[in-house]
Amino acid sequence: MEQLGAPPAVRFELLVTDGAARRGRLETAHGVVDTPAFIPVGTRGTVKSLTPADLRESGAQIVLANTYHLFLRPGHELVRDLGGLHRFMAWDGPILTDSGGFQVFSLAKFRKITEDGVWFRSPIDGAERFLSPELAIEIQQALGADIIHPLDECLAHPATREQTEQSHRLTLGWARRSQVAHRRAQPAAQALFGIVQGGGYEELRRHAVEETVAIGFDGYAIGGMAVGEPKPLMLDLIELTASLLPVTQPRYLMGIGKPPDLVESVARGVDIFDCVLPTRNALNGQAFTWDGPVVLKQARFVRDARPLDAVCGCYTCRHFSRAYVRHLFVSGELLAYRLLTLHNLVYFQNLVAGMREAIASGGFAAFRARFFARYGVLSAGVSPDEDPTPEA
Amino acid sequence: MEQLGAPPAVRFELLVTDGAARRGRLETAHGVVDTPAFIPVGTRGTVKSLTPADLRESGAQIVLANTYHLFLRPGHELVRDLGGLHRFMAWDGPILTDSGGFQVFSLAKFRKITEDGVWFRSPIDGAERFLSPELAIEIQQALGADIIHPLDECLAHPATREQTEQSHRLTLGWARRSQVAHRRAQPAAQALFGIVQGGGYEELRRHAVEETVAIGFDGYAIGGMAVGEPKPLMLDLIELTASLLPVTQPRYLMGIGKPPDLVESVARGVDIFDCVLPTRNALNGQAFTWDGPVVLKQARFVRDARPLDAVCGCYTCRHFSRAYVRHLFVSGELLAYRLLTLHNLVYFQNLVAGMREAIASGGFAAFRARFFARYGVLSAGVSPDEDPTPEA
Repeated sequence: MEQLGAPPAVRFELLVTDGAARRGRLETAHGVVDTPAFIPVGTRGTVKSLTPADLRESGAQIVLANTYHLFLRPGHELVRDLGGLHRFMAWDGPILTDSGGFQVFSLAKFRKITEDGVWFRSPIDGAERFLSPELAIEIQQALGADIIHPLDECLAHPATREQTEQSHRLTLGWARRSQVAHRRAQPAAQALFGIVQGGGYEELRRHAVEETVAIGFDGYAIGGMAVGEPKPLMLDLIELTASLLPVTQPRYLMGIGKPPDLVESVARGVDIFDCVLPTRNALNGQAFTWDGPVVLKQARFVRDARPLDAVCGCYTCRHFSRAYVRHLFVSGELLAYRLLTLHNLVYFQNLVAGMREAIASGGFAAFRARFFARYGVLSAGVSPDEDPTPEA
Repeated sequence: MEQLGAPPAVRFELLVTDGAARRGRLETAHGVVDTPAFIPVGTRGTVKSLTPADLRESGAQIVLANTYHLFLRPGHELVRDLGGLHRFMAWDGPILTDSGGFQVFSLAKFRKITEDGVWFRSPIDGAERFLSPELAIEIQQALGADIIHPLDECLAHPATREQTEQSHRLTLGWARRSQVAHRRAQPAAQALFGIVQGGGYEELRRHAVEETVAIGFDGYAIGGMAVGEPKPLMLDLIELTASLLPVTQPRYLMGIGKPPDLVESVARGVDIFDCVLPTRNALNGQAFTWDGPVVLKQARFVRDARPLDAVCGCYTCRHFSRAYVRHLFVSGELLAYRLLTLHNLVYFQNLVAGMREAIASGGFAAFRARFFARYGVLSAGVSPDEDPTPEA
């Protein structure tokens, strides 16, 4: 379904498989992304508290920014006029933008959905705003991301079959219009991924895959996960959806998730992830480690001279004790958020890097077993990491 | 007045003078400080939002931490047990601590002063705490700073002659007890500076210098400035005090100040400064430049593609536009504070470096004239930088 004569904006190479797990390589106009990959979330054109130099140091190869947030502030025309998002945020690697659909449906106070698009009230100034599939593409073209997405509707769980079917039809119609709008502009360096919805219904997920693939995209996102459904259902739906998607194209699971979810989803054939968990939970004083999350406000860390994670080589762990980071956190010091964010992103990057190596050497099953034998040891009997709203 | 047999804990070398302006070199156990020097304020053992690596990159050679804040949280014993403040905050350069006096008198809700010391209520948990000259020394020894200070009383302006005399006598008595406590411990690598108070009265300032110098310290701090007095009086008192202090020892003006104050005080013989201005005003969205302060929330910067300061080589100015930093600031993004803090500290370091060079080449008067011809150009008719509480 590629447009005749136009070279693909991204090139995906599937290097090795190990069971359903895949080791791949995604080439974009701004560089390569090794998969499985984790994308840090830079909602407003910044990954909270970090510089582009930190992101590179963390091992990140690609950053996500939110169409919805940048549309509302500072506005996509401003970003375009200042040279595009890469230049604006000084990140010269690949950027992925979502379509804004998830935020419209989860953050906006008032909304009215029609076939045309969605009306909502801006949380910033209360103004009524309209987002259509065509405008979402226009915004993302102005931002200049390497990988963009069509406007979609993201239903919460549970939803009736009828609601889900109706939403699914709307998303498919918007996907077709997005594809038309995207091709009209012929942006050689910008890839458009399709988003597979379909709610909690296997049959609708199957249908969503078929129809979305029939439209033809540069890659496929799995949307509408971790919106309230039970974990086993989520993993089943991910497995089903991934198994139906084209083998030769990248698969991106939107807004997921916890480290165990990443491992389980790679085991089911997912290539790319994004999630606010490492960055948002840093703001709550939570550090991810191979033994599970460390909740720094707990009194047991007051005099703990050890680094956040003994096996971590990040700047935070090379220089600071849990006691110091805890002191910063309980004092409300800005450096706490930065040190924790950096550490957490390094943890997530090391996690996907570990999976890449394991797949490449045919040892993914062993990696998965080792991961689960250890993860959570530390937090046994202690409050687990929080389930975040995926991409808000 | 040095203790027989004990080598001085710091060594100050006066390299060049240019009028009253001095270019010097202060050797401490953790490294050299070139003077005139500006010390970034790391209140709770962290310069807000920055890592030690950032501080080095900014040109900072020494960091200040607050005895009062660290005494209350996390507690000096904890810091000592974890290897001292250098290790705790991972800063291997020189550290200076104040005595806590200023914070007790400016921040604590309730306080009762006696000859013994001062009772106050902790703003953290409401507990009654007591700080004496001896305890202030003990705390600072536990923290392990390179340069420490005796507990002093810092009066607000205006104060009557009688109040000022009484306070001045208290401060001198505490200085003597601090000196005794300090020598008892014989910390080879820790210098004790005396603090010259005396309020707004020339005669009391003269007396304070005489008496403080008679006790004998490794260097001298000028305290009780920028506490409400008019700027001309402040500069006169600084000039008087500096002119009376020993030529061969370092002079540290506590809690000052704005860039023009730094230039005017160097012109009057001051060697060392600290101030929260570059770090605190960063939190208010203010960037210091050679043209004066830039207040980023102003609408005129919305589409400004220029760096904060065209002649600045800091990470922020090398990578980001005013429009981007403004976007971060109005969005409440943590990176805004970090980028502004880094830039502001680089500005202050460049300012003192410029003065060092100017003095060394006998061109300080020309430097001073050039500085004032330019500074404030940008903010003419616009709200000036704020006058912060010096060291809170």
